[in-house]
Amino acid sequence: MTQRIHDYLERTAHEAPCLVMDLERVRDNYQAFAHAMPDTRVFYAIKANPAPAILELLAELSSCFDAASVAEIRMALAAGATPDRISYSNTIKRERDIATAFDLGVRQFAFDCDAELEKIARVAPGSRVVCRLLCDGEGADWPLSKKFGCAPAMAGRLMRRAHELGLEAHGLAFHVGSQQPNPGMWDGALATCADLFRQLGEQGIEMKMVNLGGGFPARYLRDVPQVEMYGQAITGSLKRHFGNRIPQTIIEPGRGLVGDAGVIRSEIVLISKKDDDDPVRWVYLDIGKFGGLAETIDEAIRYPIRTDHDGEELAPVVLAGPTCDSVDVMYEKEPYLLPVSIEIGETVTIESTGAYTATYASNGFNGFDPLRCVCI
Amino acid sequence: MTQRIHDYLERTAHEAPCLVMDLERVRDNYQAFAHAMPDTRVFYAIKANPAPAILELLAELSSCFDAASVAEIRMALAAGATPDRISYSNTIKRERDIATAFDLGVRQFAFDCDAELEKIARVAPGSRVVCRLLCDGEGADWPLSKKFGCAPAMAGRLMRRAHELGLEAHGLAFHVGSQQPNPGMWDGALATCADLFRQLGEQGIEMKMVNLGGGFPARYLRDVPQVEMYGQAITGSLKRHFGNRIPQTIIEPGRGLVGDAGVIRSEIVLISKKDDDDPVRWVYLDIGKFGGLAETIDEAIRYPIRTDHDGEELAPVVLAGPTCDSVDVMYEKEPYLLPVSIEIGETVTIESTGAYTATYASNGFNGFDPLRCVCI
Repeated sequence: MTQRIHDYLERTAHEAPCLVMDLERVRDNYQAFAHAMPDTRVFYAIKANPAPAILELLAELSSCFDAASVAEIRMALAAGATPDRISYSNTIKRERDIATAFDLGVRQFAFDCDAELEKIARVAPGSRVVCRLLCDGEGADWPLSKKFGCAPAMAGRLMRRAHELGLEAHGLAFHVGSQQPNPGMWDGALATCADLFRQLGEQGIEMKMVNLGGGFPARYLRDVPQVEMYGQAITGSLKRHFGNRIPQTIIEPGRGLVGDAGVIRSEIVLISKKDDDDPVRWVYLDIGKFGGLAETIDEAIRYPIRTDHDGEELAPVVLAGPTCDSVDVMYEKEPYLLPVSIEIGETVTIESTGAYTATYASNGFNGFDPLRCVCI
Repeated sequence: MTQRIHDYLERTAHEAPCLVMDLERVRDNYQAFAHAMPDTRVFYAIKANPAPAILELLAELSSCFDAASVAEIRMALAAGATPDRISYSNTIKRERDIATAFDLGVRQFAFDCDAELEKIARVAPGSRVVCRLLCDGEGADWPLSKKFGCAPAMAGRLMRRAHELGLEAHGLAFHVGSQQPNPGMWDGALATCADLFRQLGEQGIEMKMVNLGGGFPARYLRDVPQVEMYGQAITGSLKRHFGNRIPQTIIEPGRGLVGDAGVIRSEIVLISKKDDDDPVRWVYLDIGKFGGLAETIDEAIRYPIRTDHDGEELAPVVLAGPTCDSVDVMYEKEPYLLPVSIEIGETVTIESTGAYTATYASNGFNGFDPLRCVCI
């Protein structure tokens, strides 16, 4: 937790759970990326946290934006980004949404199949298209499925077709999996990209850009490598595979920019046991899977939790949310260690919750309001 | 799909996915419960779908209400329910929320541990309390965990304590698991309840009520028994275990009242393959796990989907949602059969989606609006 968030929480009461974002930390994270990867442009993944103050700060810092929908494109524009700094990076777009984006000035679109390419050619003529490759995301804490991307040979065929359709065959994209702890994971995909650049170049199609995706981790309970390590590993791979013809690169961090900039303040609603001689304590917070902690599904992400009793004796607990829904349990298979002395009514802070919390919150399930987000 | 919903969809265009609820079907479902279990009061589980028109209809039909939060209590009151028809059935409540409910006139509270009982005794003196028992939910499609309830011996001790604290030791509650296909599943829990009624009766504490919970299924792709079957099985168990001293009973259906009364209209955004020679088609809708179909997590609930090509040749597809999130895939492990001839831009209807969809929808993830709900 940053000192600024700490001070804010000291002087501010909140009735319900609340996400507090430190904009200074977002700025620091942005600059760490800019410093570690000076030749790479940052496209912030708006979906991670679309709070207007975050978008405005990043627009001011000259960040570009990765938008998943027309609504996100409008958010970026409202925050001061020009349309040339916005990529419509969702490979799944309604044709009328592509047309609206084009009308708004957006000229860069992701795709991974024929049908999507045809939509773009019809309603966004002459635009830059970026073909997404399948990538297995091995090792990531929040792995990607085969949902996005196509096989390399198909990507080569699609880029030739894009060229024939009058589109600009701009480049390739891939994503190594969110919260990826291994900086070496970009290497294999970059080898594939370099092959495709060469093949298409021999056919007169000069691609210019590789979108390195996201995957840069936030710090939760496990230590993760610093962003510099990722920069070095990726630069090494680019040199190895592209030689002296290194393309433009962009990255689309979301979690890596805002994850550790946010803290959720929550209240302990109940502590109980299921039987008088059961050693296991159940601790129920006022926030759970439906209130913003959806990434605890399958206990994938383990957030650090601070209490007023840190440093005192610890014991394992099952940690659950406040709703009348039995799936609303965060950590049960691998119980969470919390101080024995915590009490009902006390507040706790859940750290590194700046990404994928406010936007994952349900629209009032059980009558609980969506998670509030305050930017300081 | 009901004729009324069919006619509505024929004459109405929607830009985005939309849930349409047939209030006549909700009325029919309520009356089916009233008919099948004439001695049992219905407490509608508001969390399943809190649309005001549904709450108003049920209030008019003399339904009672199971509320999970103060916000849901206020919704029921706004719909015309009197506070004596509202049970605050969440076992996890902030003390100040219990106090607010008490101020609003609510006098029935669920609990499953000492701390919660103490809160109720402090701020809702003299109220009726209902102790929830652990129940394993075996066989349910949406099983419950150990999140709610306590062991029977502990429940007996807690009810004696409730009595000492000046509360009315009103009864016991259990839940056999949502979407429970086996009408016999209530029997074991009712045997436990009858034992506790006898034990406490011998100590001068006369409990009056058993809350049979929810679990009554909606019809999705698999056939489920009719509500009459549940009524008969439960009545049989009550007679067997309570003899001629059958207590008052209540049920808390949510899905069983509104599940099959709703249909989501959705649009096919994209159909693609991951490789040119890959036989698997991916079909992407404009709604997915974050837009309201969260119950497809682990492919638990399989919704019936109708297309304009029903009756034509079928082939398996992977079905996914529209967000830039790789977990937003509904059916992949067990692919879904859809007609070969479906096309991008066509609409489909997702049936039996009246429960746990609009309330599970995220608060604008990827910029997509929460699911709209229209009651007709």
